[in-house]
Amino acid sequence: MPRVDRLLENNRAYAENFASGDLPASPAQKLMVLTCMDARIDVYKILGLREGDAHIIRNAGGIVTEDSLRSIFVSQKLLGTETIVLIQHTECGMLNLDEDLVRRQVRSEAGVDLPFDLGAIEDLEQSVRRGLDALTSSPFINDKEVRGFIYDVRTGTLLEVAD
Amino acid sequence: MPRVDRLLENNRAYAENFASGDLPASPAQKLMVLTCMDARIDVYKILGLREGDAHIIRNAGGIVTEDSLRSIFVSQKLLGTETIVLIQHTECGMLNLDEDLVRRQVRSEAGVDLPFDLGAIEDLEQSVRRGLDALTSSPFINDKEVRGFIYDVRTGTLLEVAD
Repeated sequence: MPRVDRLLENNRAYAENFASGDLPASPAQKLMVLTCMDARIDVYKILGLREGDAHIIRNAGGIVTEDSLRSIFVSQKLLGTETIVLIQHTECGMLNLDEDLVRRQVRSEAGVDLPFDLGAIEDLEQSVRRGLDALTSSPFINDKEVRGFIYDVRTGTLLEVAD
Repeated sequence: MPRVDRLLENNRAYAENFASGDLPASPAQKLMVLTCMDARIDVYKILGLREGDAHIIRNAGGIVTEDSLRSIFVSQKLLGTETIVLIQHTECGMLNLDEDLVRRQVRSEAGVDLPFDLGAIEDLEQSVRRGLDALTSSPFINDKEVRGFIYDVRTGTLLEVAD
């Protein structure tokens, strides 16, 4: 069966046992999680969350971009979240990525320049700290509680990074 | 117990039964899902995914931003995904959002201008179609398979939007 059709079959099974149709848009735990798109991170499972508990923002690296700030602003200002949990992880595809090499490849293959930075990460702890700084220094984000972690994809464990 | 401490306790329980520590970074299903940060959408559950299956990108609205394109480029070019599934949803906080009103509030409360568009959505189907167009027209994204859906938060069901 083609990939997406199998997902739709899975969704039909999910919908048959669906029991959370009365949840509001505002997250029950007033929580927002920003993390990497990495396939190994099932955010709901690793944090023991249920449908309706938390906004989840994900991008390559779990870095704080302008789009993350937009989403967090909406999350806090319009939907009442108060706590931010930032999670980056071991063995991330963005670690030690050679951006210059990728740029040269794109230029030679597609004949155009990449219009964005890739967001390569050199050092995980430093990157989480930089993310925490970006979050707490933004005038558009409330910093009631902002916590940063590194997720170990080999053990399933979260390690806190001190601010 | 404070919110984040409870999540860490949940994580310890998850790590104790952790059995997927040998998964590679490249998604097993060569799949990338772009969707909204909405708390009611547990992507793994609604699509029947397992750890390691798919990259998940999430932002306010599940819209195609420059940061989405960055993440998808990384997902395809560096980690080999081929299929993109775009999912927006009913009762989204971005639907009929009055951006001008929010801007005026921020200016009056914080004395500064919001430096980004909020990405309000007027019509869901049109918005998914616009997202599909943005994805298939980007020179940095392979369009081997791109599918768009609306997720109904009342029924748990996905409805496909024709391209």
